[in-house]
Amino acid sequence: MGSPVHRVSLGDTWSRQMHPDMESERYMQSFDVERLTNILDGGAQNTALRRKVESIIHSYPEFSRKDNYFMTQNERYKAAMRRAFHIRLIAQRLGWLEDGRELGYAYRALSGDVALNIHRVFLKALRSLGSEEQIAKWDPLCKNIQIIATYAQTELGHGTYLQGLETEATYDAATQEFVIHSPTLTATKWWPGDLGRSATHALVQAQLVCSGARRGMHAFIVPIRSLRDHTPLPGIIVGDIGPKMDFDQMDNGFLQLNHVRVPRENMLSRFAQVLPDGTYIKLGTAQSNYLPMVVVRVELLLGEVLPTLQKACVIAMRYSVIRRQSQLRPSDPEAKVLDYQTQQQKLFPQLAISYAFHFLAVSLLEFFQHAYTAILNRDFSLLPELHALSTGMKAMMSEFCTQGAEICRRACGGHGYSKLSGLPSLVTKLSASCTYEGENTVLYLQVARFLVKSYLQTQMSPGSTPQRSLPPSVAYLATPDLARCPAQRAADFLCPELYTTAWAHVAARLIKDSVHHLQTLTQSGADQHEAWNQTTVIHLQAAKAHCYYVTVKGFTEALEKLENESAIQQVLKRLCDLHAIHGILTNSGDFLHDAFLSGAQVDMARTAYLDLLCLIRRTLPMRNI
Amino acid sequence: MGSPVHRVSLGDTWSRQMHPDMESERYMQSFDVERLTNILDGGAQNTALRRKVESIIHSYPEFSRKDNYFMTQNERYKAAMRRAFHIRLIAQRLGWLEDGRELGYAYRALSGDVALNIHRVFLKALRSLGSEEQIAKWDPLCKNIQIIATYAQTELGHGTYLQGLETEATYDAATQEFVIHSPTLTATKWWPGDLGRSATHALVQAQLVCSGARRGMHAFIVPIRSLRDHTPLPGIIVGDIGPKMDFDQMDNGFLQLNHVRVPRENMLSRFAQVLPDGTYIKLGTAQSNYLPMVVVRVELLLGEVLPTLQKACVIAMRYSVIRRQSQLRPSDPEAKVLDYQTQQQKLFPQLAISYAFHFLAVSLLEFFQHAYTAILNRDFSLLPELHALSTGMKAMMSEFCTQGAEICRRACGGHGYSKLSGLPSLVTKLSASCTYEGENTVLYLQVARFLVKSYLQTQMSPGSTPQRSLPPSVAYLATPDLARCPAQRAADFLCPELYTTAWAHVAARLIKDSVHHLQTLTQSGADQHEAWNQTTVIHLQAAKAHCYYVTVKGFTEALEKLENESAIQQVLKRLCDLHAIHGILTNSGDFLHDAFLSGAQVDMARTAYLDLLCLIRRTLPMRNI
Repeated sequence: MGSPVHRVSLGDTWSRQMHPDMESERYMQSFDVERLTNILDGGAQNTALRRKVESIIHSYPEFSRKDNYFMTQNERYKAAMRRAFHIRLIAQRLGWLEDGRELGYAYRALSGDVALNIHRVFLKALRSLGSEEQIAKWDPLCKNIQIIATYAQTELGHGTYLQGLETEATYDAATQEFVIHSPTLTATKWWPGDLGRSATHALVQAQLVCSGARRGMHAFIVPIRSLRDHTPLPGIIVGDIGPKMDFDQMDNGFLQLNHVRVPRENMLSRFAQVLPDGTYIKLGTAQSNYLPMVVVRVELLLGEVLPTLQKACVIAMRYSVIRRQSQLRPSDPEAKVLDYQTQQQKLFPQLAISYAFHFLAVSLLEFFQHAYTAILNRDFSLLPELHALSTGMKAMMSEFCTQGAEICRRACGGHGYSKLSGLPSLVTKLSASCTYEGENTVLYLQVARFLVKSYLQTQMSPGSTPQRSLPPSVAYLATPDLARCPAQRAADFLCPELYTTAWAHVAARLIKDSVHHLQTLTQSGADQHEAWNQTTVIHLQAAKAHCYYVTVKGFTEALEKLENESAIQQVLKRLCDLHAIHGILTNSGDFLHDAFLSGAQVDMARTAYLDLLCLIRRTLPMRNI
Repeated sequence: MGSPVHRVSLGDTWSRQMHPDMESERYMQSFDVERLTNILDGGAQNTALRRKVESIIHSYPEFSRKDNYFMTQNERYKAAMRRAFHIRLIAQRLGWLEDGRELGYAYRALSGDVALNIHRVFLKALRSLGSEEQIAKWDPLCKNIQIIATYAQTELGHGTYLQGLETEATYDAATQEFVIHSPTLTATKWWPGDLGRSATHALVQAQLVCSGARRGMHAFIVPIRSLRDHTPLPGIIVGDIGPKMDFDQMDNGFLQLNHVRVPRENMLSRFAQVLPDGTYIKLGTAQSNYLPMVVVRVELLLGEVLPTLQKACVIAMRYSVIRRQSQLRPSDPEAKVLDYQTQQQKLFPQLAISYAFHFLAVSLLEFFQHAYTAILNRDFSLLPELHALSTGMKAMMSEFCTQGAEICRRACGGHGYSKLSGLPSLVTKLSASCTYEGENTVLYLQVARFLVKSYLQTQMSPGSTPQRSLPPSVAYLATPDLARCPAQRAADFLCPELYTTAWAHVAARLIKDSVHHLQTLTQSGADQHEAWNQTTVIHLQAAKAHCYYVTVKGFTEALEKLENESAIQQVLKRLCDLHAIHGILTNSGDFLHDAFLSGAQVDMARTAYLDLLCLIRRTLPMRNI
């Protein structure tokens, strides 16, 4: 504070010199920033590899995005398509494996501004839902871009409720074909990326009808455009759905199918088959078809959602040490805006949550890889926990990252409104993640159903049924609970044990409360579905508290693993503390409701929080941002 | 619920028939919707006039906005400019007065998608700050578009802190001219609308230097482009600042001035003059120069900010009675999404706040017109209350309207992400209002200073100073207060007296708390400015609670005036109740903190809230939306 103001005179030519205010911040580092970078990358070799890949990507003018904000939608699409092909050429030339780290880093460096992303989703869906023969047939065609494929699930009138999809696939045993058909306007497939202008094939999710029986949603590979001249095939109406809030580079499309016939072999058949005579054979559970969505959701969090908030934090933090506005004291020069408590209050919780989500997403990915292998071998025992964790984290991360990026954007004042700051498109891109791959309210309510079930499981008398152990994320429901928080002074709120317990208490209380309301309504005669609808606002609150608990718990566990990195552990612990306490203050009503916290204790938490803002300001790892 | 689903078959041609789901909703009206429309318009004649103007506007193809989402920025700019001239032609032809209702309705019908808006801000600033001679000279030039003018205040490096503006206006007595100059890069004027490509003149806010003394910010009319060929005049560098999150139609610009000379008469001199010899004469207070901002802020709320949320509500509500998704009961057809409690929880509070803000803005405008007349006659006694109310309401309305529109957008799922839904641009337009015309955090803190002063005034012993009465908006600080809320059952929360008192209690407690923290810090030796900075997070919370109280109080007072309209009063009261209780639940920690509410009472409030959602769903005035 009180440092002299550096002003660029009009005579100066624009230079590449570092701004003195930025330089002084970077000079004051309190720990080994490179080491933290390595930890975030999962090892020093990864950091080195990532930087190498980034320097390769940045060396090609094809990947430059500097004119993006001045391009039309059509120009954006073409540039993204050029990038999609160029990155494949480079990968081939340099021998990058398709699922290798290099390509992952390369895509991250392009910030999703590349075409054929849904072509890649198709590939994942194929590998999740296809038989070995089907994978052997279609996989190489995709990889070599002999076909361009998309994943067509959502319809104009149907999103999250998959049973409501109207597109039909009726099996015709006479010709051994499926007849794929959109019976109504609302059955039109709507939104698939790469569909509007690019795709030659679509994985169409449709209601299977065979031997007169409806069998629910199944996946069919349907050719939609000619491989010779790219015109729509007979019975196909296809096009672009028009301008969106963002994603100009993507040709989101619509698709209507008028009795389009595909051979029997085009139904993906890892989990279900239709025999030539129309006999239906089920090999998986009813949930098997949802597996591609779980895959996409988990990869999205680390690959798209979280990095976008991280970028917003970096931009806002850098801006806040260069921008000076008003005076902290009358005799001082104008102060850096990051020295204002209100600016710290805006930005530091976003920084903290970036780290919380990073560690959580990494551990979720590990769990996912473990569970996924089991599921592909038709062991579905981990699916409920995987589903609850991935839906809950998708909902919470997309919600908080969107909110956080918008806070970062507004914290940059008018400049945050200029597209050239980068912030507007980070926000409009993130906003979409609250809706795509499962609308957040619907996802939270799926978590709530899992919580209700888990809670009821703890209430069974021991012996009435074979007592299964609770999945780890809800083990706290069976743990003895304190009625009052023991904190006696502000510093007590810097204890991970204390705030993790506090979050567990609140989540458990709200879950119990939601079950209580549900049971009261049904016991008073309400239909169980009506009772569910009349308590969803309460369930939503419980699910959100549970998800917050999971992030706090996950962050503290990640810190424990850093025991050999005490300097970094110390810096990160402040962010962990801030994340936990910020949540307590934002939701103080939930903690005060049953007097688990007293008003005086909330004031202590607030004191701890405000002190943390000061502390973090002094030790902010600016090299890292 | 349970009504049959209407599906459009693919063979149907698109028709202009009303959707049966919409029709059935409109059929069930519980009150005279036209009468409510008249009330909102301020009388049946106004409704008739508004509709007449709207039909005129919609009859001209020049005003069509149907291709907006497919246009480039340049095309948007040109179309907006064409509209600006066309609307003037129509106004001339039909004899619409410049400050008349017709033109107001016309601009509202164009949703701000018209050029020369800042030209109109210039005119307002001229009339606020100019002498009678200056107004007589410049006003007709503007009105006849012989010149195009803009209001240039914000600089690249300076926004809310006006003392920090770097642009200088140095008086040269030898030539009786001011020398206007941008000494640094950060002094570049940045953001003014109509500046990038259109303006020939700018009202430049600059630091006046005369007879060697700095006199603070004053306004100067500076010619910037040739009236002959529109090229920048000598010493002027001017251009467009590039793409923004929205407002493509507007040419926001930058302006650098290199020792540009203007005659002495070009300093606006209603409140300050420089005599030929350089003598400075002050006629107003230090705040006089801020008057144009207050004018613009108040008009913005009713003209731009609130209508944008209202539109978002209409779109989302209509969508929610046509969109069907999932089932409420297994045997039912898919349900309208508005029948889900979570959808009601998203949309109804936005509807409620639209009405709360409408009534508040109307009464604020009345107060403003009264106060403005006094101020123009140099009676500044109402300025503090006017300033606190207008800043607080600007901050709260822009914040809640932006948040509300985004909630409406997301409540429409994927379709809310399509620009064609209209929602994305409503949100990105509103987002700007959180920053322009005073950044919201800065504004809330100005309210907080007013609250601290007002609170300290209540603490003076009677007789120590001549006791001024508190301004009406903070009169509650001097009112005896209950320690506990008397509510005993859910229905008690439907009493305006009860919840208004509850909000007054919480606002008063938080203000007292913020003053206490400020005083504790200064008494323990902290510098008063540092103490302010270290308590701003607490002051912010107090200011927000106060603003919420003002909206609740304003809504209840507006309802009282509807005593002769009992059916409408009853419907609106539900929205008023919802607004008050929704705020209590969202901020329940503030009410539980000192045990003003108990946990059981918060549960009662929640019951009342959930019941209101049902009730409002049944009586929703769909004709009106």
